[in-house]
Amino acid sequence: MRILITGAAGMIGRKLTARLVGNGGLNGKPIEKLTLVDISAPTKPERFAGAVETIAADVSDPAIMRAAVGKRPDVIFHLAAVVSAEAELDFEKGTRINLDGSRALLEAIRTAGGNYRPRLVFTSSIAVFGAPFPEAIADDFHLTPLTSYGTQKAVIELLLADYTRRGFVDGVGIRLPSIVVRPGRPNKAASGFFSSIIREPLAGQEAVLPVEDSVLHWHASPRAAVGFLVHAAGLDAAKLGPRVNLTMPGVCCTVAEQIASLRRIAGEKVAARIRREPDPLVARIVAGWPSRFDPRRALALGFCGEASFDEIIRVHIEDELGGKIAN
Amino acid sequence: MRILITGAAGMIGRKLTARLVGNGGLNGKPIEKLTLVDISAPTKPERFAGAVETIAADVSDPAIMRAAVGKRPDVIFHLAAVVSAEAELDFEKGTRINLDGSRALLEAIRTAGGNYRPRLVFTSSIAVFGAPFPEAIADDFHLTPLTSYGTQKAVIELLLADYTRRGFVDGVGIRLPSIVVRPGRPNKAASGFFSSIIREPLAGQEAVLPVEDSVLHWHASPRAAVGFLVHAAGLDAAKLGPRVNLTMPGVCCTVAEQIASLRRIAGEKVAARIRREPDPLVARIVAGWPSRFDPRRALALGFCGEASFDEIIRVHIEDELGGKIAN
Repeated sequence: MRILITGAAGMIGRKLTARLVGNGGLNGKPIEKLTLVDISAPTKPERFAGAVETIAADVSDPAIMRAAVGKRPDVIFHLAAVVSAEAELDFEKGTRINLDGSRALLEAIRTAGGNYRPRLVFTSSIAVFGAPFPEAIADDFHLTPLTSYGTQKAVIELLLADYTRRGFVDGVGIRLPSIVVRPGRPNKAASGFFSSIIREPLAGQEAVLPVEDSVLHWHASPRAAVGFLVHAAGLDAAKLGPRVNLTMPGVCCTVAEQIASLRRIAGEKVAARIRREPDPLVARIVAGWPSRFDPRRALALGFCGEASFDEIIRVHIEDELGGKIAN
Repeated sequence: MRILITGAAGMIGRKLTARLVGNGGLNGKPIEKLTLVDISAPTKPERFAGAVETIAADVSDPAIMRAAVGKRPDVIFHLAAVVSAEAELDFEKGTRINLDGSRALLEAIRTAGGNYRPRLVFTSSIAVFGAPFPEAIADDFHLTPLTSYGTQKAVIELLLADYTRRGFVDGVGIRLPSIVVRPGRPNKAASGFFSSIIREPLAGQEAVLPVEDSVLHWHASPRAAVGFLVHAAGLDAAKLGPRVNLTMPGVCCTVAEQIASLRRIAGEKVAARIRREPDPLVARIVAGWPSRFDPRRALALGFCGEASFDEIIRVHIEDELGGKIAN
């Protein structure tokens, strides 16, 4: 089993690499080789018996994608992306990475020759959907993104389905919920505050909330996201059928409910570290996002997320804080 | 008023050019200049007072698109496309023309500078929708094309909406029904037989029907299609709103009903010139196409098609046959 991960130096990429190395195998087969690609060199995992190659390069370079695919990975996790707020502020960069980079990968696979047809797991986003929305958004709700990021993801969903239909690749697109609680520093995603308002208070720091408490959103932990990726890698294409893009399960709750969870788990003093400071750009982007889904296809196919926001906070405390909270 | 037409040498392009020249103006303004682009040089229209420039070039060449857009047309009709069956058989050509050519045009407009923001009328297709379908497909049915042609059109619909949202262009995408009765020789479109079974018998020739009589489809005449394009050019963007891609009105009928119309208008002897010869490739492509729509948005915005298939046949006899039928 040879595996290629793009965006391997990112938060999900690092956790996925660690999970794969920890498991030692994927789809019931031992991992012989990992190829890790990112714009800055991914760290080589420790305690891994197989071969590791790290490539520091831009995924929008077709030659790099051809070289990475030339190793004939059996499974490719395509995580590399410019996040939502950055893609909105820098249209050309978002287009180059999210659209042209993904196309370069699809084309490298299509033209590799020798009946090569790897499983390609593409991380899409709930941002492919745009308001106005029904009460709960089914997998077959139409794609009307209201951001360039969502547009770029939706375009690749369409191409992934067509490349899969034609037999060029064996694709699965998974629309990730907002991933919370993200560890480390805030990134440029407009959704960053969903993590900050939990992470910073738990670490003894103040967090800024740029939107109303009533904002409803769809969440999954990094641990759940990695689980989705691993499950997608082994999904039976016959069960998946021609509609290869799936909304992942998540926890639907308001910002107020997030804060109530934090108070329940860590106490009032921790929850009081959230400061309200409205940001119109973030509020506008988030207002165009969907908030409640009906992920029945993913559930029927065995994808499994968290059952409550309390569980999401507990995953963060276990996986990132060694079980400890700063009081 | 300066106008650019890509795909100007095609059937719809020629009829649109003739209509514009006949009208002498568009959106209430006289036409000063027509720029006509196609892979083979478009014919210069006669009896036109304004300037005409014809360009024989591939629309997927970014330099050509930049040069064409450099004339600062006020309205651009982007008709250039590889048709459905050809895009299915030649994936690379379909991608180059339908996807990269359209992107080259969008990028030429975005980067033209000087707050240039023309009205861009893009001809999309009902092939952006794929089975299984509801009884009638609304504008907000999800995009699940089952052909590469439909995928390429759906991708450009998404980009057109995003470029319009960002203010790079003032786009309108119109999803044309199958255009019948196409004059002249059959083209490579899988939908070609919908025209052949009317056109050939009316001209005294035998026609081949490759699908079942029960096949239901969505039709408009070339005259109606040109009307849609002209109406789209003058559409109020404020009334259109952010969902810029619209399904056009059409006549929904079965092949059997088409043949009944032909019999009613031209007699049994003419209708008997249709020979049944099943073609599995055509049948498979057509089976994935939608057949009945709810074009309420387009109707509310003033788009107007035919009321019956009889009317579509009469338009053909008037516009192409000088009112005469070969008995």
